[in-house]
Amino acid sequence: MASETSLQVTVPDMDCSSCVRAITAAVQGVDPHATVAADLQSKKVVIGGDAQAQQFIEAIREAGFSVTPS
Amino acid sequence: MASETSLQVTVPDMDCSSCVRAITAAVQGVDPHATVAADLQSKKVVIGGDAQAQQFIEAIREAGFSVTPS
Repeated sequence: MASETSLQVTVPDMDCSSCVRAITAAVQGVDPHATVAADLQSKKVVIGGDAQAQQFIEAIREAGFSVTPS
Repeated sequence: MASETSLQVTVPDMDCSSCVRAITAAVQGVDPHATVAADLQSKKVVIGGDAQAQQFIEAIREAGFSVTPS
């Protein structure tokens, strides 16, 4: 099944691979099958999954990271 | 009121200040008034709050970090 939502955001304080794991855990707390591709250099995160974009963004914020539009 | 629980754990993959924020968010998701003191060099985290130690540990694990006894 194709993912309902695909979004790209910037997470400026994503500084290391443990941050990427934390962000992935937050996103997959919303949708366990969501995909997360993160680039530490550009701070960009691409998310695909079956929930609304705002739900993914809120989960990342609740995990302690700021999120800005990409 | 004194905190019910005080525990010290090691979070080996806590690598930067954003990790500390993520761990703090996870702990405070269990108890909003919990205190978190983290040392990036030793990877030790001291938590004080009104929940069971295991609840704090589980929240940190669900946030994508491993936790070992200190």
